[in-house]
Amino acid sequence: MTQAVLIDGKLIAALKRQNIKQHVSQTFHAFGRKPSLHVILVGDHPASQLYVQNKQAACHEVGIDSCVHKLSENMVEDGVLDLIKGLNQDPGVHGILLQLPLPNAFNRQRLLNEINPAKDVDGLHPYNLGRLISGDPLMVPCTPLGCLELIQSVCPDLRGKHALVVGRSILVGKPMAMLLTNNDVTVTLAHSSTVNLKQLCQQADILVTAIGQPRFITADFIKPGAIVIDVGINRDGSTEEKASVVGDVDRESVQKVAGYVTPVPGGVGPMTIACLLSNTVRAMTVQIADAI
Amino acid sequence: MTQAVLIDGKLIAALKRQNIKQHVSQTFHAFGRKPSLHVILVGDHPASQLYVQNKQAACHEVGIDSCVHKLSENMVEDGVLDLIKGLNQDPGVHGILLQLPLPNAFNRQRLLNEINPAKDVDGLHPYNLGRLISGDPLMVPCTPLGCLELIQSVCPDLRGKHALVVGRSILVGKPMAMLLTNNDVTVTLAHSSTVNLKQLCQQADILVTAIGQPRFITADFIKPGAIVIDVGINRDGSTEEKASVVGDVDRESVQKVAGYVTPVPGGVGPMTIACLLSNTVRAMTVQIADAI
Repeated sequence: MTQAVLIDGKLIAALKRQNIKQHVSQTFHAFGRKPSLHVILVGDHPASQLYVQNKQAACHEVGIDSCVHKLSENMVEDGVLDLIKGLNQDPGVHGILLQLPLPNAFNRQRLLNEINPAKDVDGLHPYNLGRLISGDPLMVPCTPLGCLELIQSVCPDLRGKHALVVGRSILVGKPMAMLLTNNDVTVTLAHSSTVNLKQLCQQADILVTAIGQPRFITADFIKPGAIVIDVGINRDGSTEEKASVVGDVDRESVQKVAGYVTPVPGGVGPMTIACLLSNTVRAMTVQIADAI
Repeated sequence: MTQAVLIDGKLIAALKRQNIKQHVSQTFHAFGRKPSLHVILVGDHPASQLYVQNKQAACHEVGIDSCVHKLSENMVEDGVLDLIKGLNQDPGVHGILLQLPLPNAFNRQRLLNEINPAKDVDGLHPYNLGRLISGDPLMVPCTPLGCLELIQSVCPDLRGKHALVVGRSILVGKPMAMLLTNNDVTVTLAHSSTVNLKQLCQQADILVTAIGQPRFITADFIKPGAIVIDVGINRDGSTEEKASVVGDVDRESVQKVAGYVTPVPGGVGPMTIACLLSNTVRAMTVQIADAI
């Protein structure tokens, strides 16, 4: 029995970081400046702390300066807003990332709206989401951008393919649907109100899942030969010690039907971070061009 | 044989205009101000001139002040840009509409980007498209908004329905897909690169067509009982004298299978204009609230 090919996100992301490192070095020689990313982390969410550490390590690897603004969850929202305003004004800051999720007391949308779109390396400002709809993207959200690169690594010409995207968040599902549409894919966007999910999955040449249910997608959901991109990051296991990270896809069974599958971990995760790096480099380039 | 129910866009739009008229009158008594819409018309495109006339007549009917800035197609783009900037600054102007299509020499996106999003009654500024993606809309493009109201007039609860939207323009298809997604519909967005359009149509509880091909959608495309919304405005007939307007849907045959169909003319068209009026009223309300 043939097995699906694993799409090695870890390797593809490593190659991408290598290219970015070279680009950063060349830009430094040309302009005497290094890209600079500022991350705002509010509260003590443990997973967020780990993600931010990983982002900093990746910045360090490629030569991007990074700075984390660690704020107490007791901070007033206007304080965060003032920090963002200050970073917007600072010509030494190229990228601003508000680490999500925020503690409940904070209004995410109000804070995201304040980030200068040219520095919005997460691509979540309405202006950037709108540029994506318009087919003229400036900053594209990192996870869907990474997913697209993984898909194109095994299928460069997407024209006429049918994709099913499961999940309609602004971080993944909605921008993913727009990005694929802009690449000539016919896209179906499914979500918690979808009634015939399995049947829709079975028609998809490309399946992108951001569901948040461990191993929810099994072999019987999959069209033979499909490209399956697993965005899920779910904690599995009954005790803290045993806890491990699993995706939305039951990889063991799905691999027997699909053509290509991303693993979790080592699939979408590393690409998300690599795309954050490339967005930061892009932000600096745009800002230098605007200043000339 | 049962026949599909015609969704009477002309009537629904007339009721909507009546409500708007009442609202405008109440607002005038409360604030002493009438909403004001400024339309920018570049060049001599005959259909555009007619559309603009219809918009002005509708404004007049409900008590909205309107003004058309008729510009020569020989005008330089920066001149149009300066006009937009002036209207942005003018507190007496609540809505700004750039009539499309523009003559070829003009960069549509550059001009749309200049309109103050709070006055962007066509909802085509990237910021407004992004607010729509974010599920927190400010100004929604008029045609998709009108289509949604037509759909909801026969099916108030859309949760779990499957819609197929054909066409991926920023005027219709993409915002329509987002609007339906925000209303708990599972949405497939098809376009010129879609390979199995007929099969996809046959699965759709709701079909919205913005194709631009006269009578392209025939009975064999339709799921029995489906709601069919025809956005197409196509000129038919071999001679100028005989020319008439027909939709993308072959209504005669489709009516034998569908549950509900919009006619062309008299379906989406009047609703688009009615939504322009409600957007203009909304723009004034937002601007008054922002000024307080």
